[in-house]
Amino acid sequence: MTEDTDRGFTLGDGLFETVLVVDGQPRWLELHLARLRAGCEVMGLPKPDHIAVPKLPEAGRQALRVNWSAGMGGRGLDRPVSVAARMTFTLATAPALGPARLATALSVRRNGLSPASRLKTLSYVDNVLAREEARASGADEALMLNTLGQVACAAAANLFWIRDGRIFTPSAACGVLAGITRGRLMQAHRVEEVVAGPEALAAADAVFLTNSLTGVRAVKWLDGRALAPHPLVAALATSL
Amino acid sequence: MTEDTDRGFTLGDGLFETVLVVDGQPRWLELHLARLRAGCEVMGLPKPDHIAVPKLPEAGRQALRVNWSAGMGGRGLDRPVSVAARMTFTLATAPALGPARLATALSVRRNGLSPASRLKTLSYVDNVLAREEARASGADEALMLNTLGQVACAAAANLFWIRDGRIFTPSAACGVLAGITRGRLMQAHRVEEVVAGPEALAAADAVFLTNSLTGVRAVKWLDGRALAPHPLVAALATSL
Repeated sequence: MTEDTDRGFTLGDGLFETVLVVDGQPRWLELHLARLRAGCEVMGLPKPDHIAVPKLPEAGRQALRVNWSAGMGGRGLDRPVSVAARMTFTLATAPALGPARLATALSVRRNGLSPASRLKTLSYVDNVLAREEARASGADEALMLNTLGQVACAAAANLFWIRDGRIFTPSAACGVLAGITRGRLMQAHRVEEVVAGPEALAAADAVFLTNSLTGVRAVKWLDGRALAPHPLVAALATSL
Repeated sequence: MTEDTDRGFTLGDGLFETVLVVDGQPRWLELHLARLRAGCEVMGLPKPDHIAVPKLPEAGRQALRVNWSAGMGGRGLDRPVSVAARMTFTLATAPALGPARLATALSVRRNGLSPASRLKTLSYVDNVLAREEARASGADEALMLNTLGQVACAAAANLFWIRDGRIFTPSAACGVLAGITRGRLMQAHRVEEVVAGPEALAAADAVFLTNSLTGVRAVKWLDGRALAPHPLVAALATSL
């Protein structure tokens, strides 16, 4: 349980990680810890030494959420002199998702001029609102543009597209999380980080998403345009 | 206590109000309820019928924080079909603050293209980071610009300035909360809502802040420039 005065609850002052667990084994846990610690550096929060993973089911695929909250103390926005950060966990069955139906969020833009746009903070309401809008329009995931109108990411995934066999993704400066799967894909394959508008997606041969739970996820529909399966997306999905 | 899976905690999916309590009486409670309900409309959350204020101390000045969280349920970002929003309260002694020392936040800009910039959501980390930066520079409050470089507000207050006897404040479109005290001041006095850059503050005769806890609060220092007390600010402070 979390105190009602916990800064993670009252202010969204904290970070989280979503770790895929397969048959009792957390995947890429050290990468998640490293990203969490890097986020603490940016946010001015104390860094956890490790992630003391709780007891996990021995079979199946779960989503382990690791919350690192700034904890209690301080008046209003001001953090206490010594921040007592706390780690909590929640566990859920990992979703089994097919190809995504993506709709561009019109009601909310991503703020590349906030450090939070490159972090998984407990202040995630922009992503919630983008997802709500997408679902209301019959899609199941949102494409988020940043305040400059550049393509950034999905509400809960990084964004990639393919054109003429080349792989592209928005650069971090666009307000993009340094996704674990995004990083692994960029280590294993040549990916071009670019600053681009929605016209780049309109001209793409294929669009796909990545995150820790679903790996590579094809996009089959984008703002009313059907996208055919692409062999490179399928190859990337099995390569990771 | 709040569940670790509460969407207010995990995603900052919710709203809050900060109500001044004087000698056991909550001030402007109906205005706070109306704003909370208007925020629910924007966010797609169920609206509370009333604020069931808990037992309050009979003397002194307190800050009553009313949290309205989206509660539990849903997977990841997706809200459940029926949102079970929940209200919680925390109470603290209201701060007694003197004139503010204001420093412009350089590390974070306010996102006028998110509805959250005009609401008191549980996703307040941008404000926390702006305040942290201001305090690290020896100030006690942050001036926040929006992504277009226009002046918006302080981290926990609305912003006003005076020039040649005229009162100015950033318009809502700049990414500004519809503050209760801001609204009361604008009802009682002629205030010009404008879109302006930092040069407007540099040329101002006086700068002041408003919020529900401190009412009108003079600014005595802005980015290294000392500001003398101004009779109109003092008059406005006593008029509300």
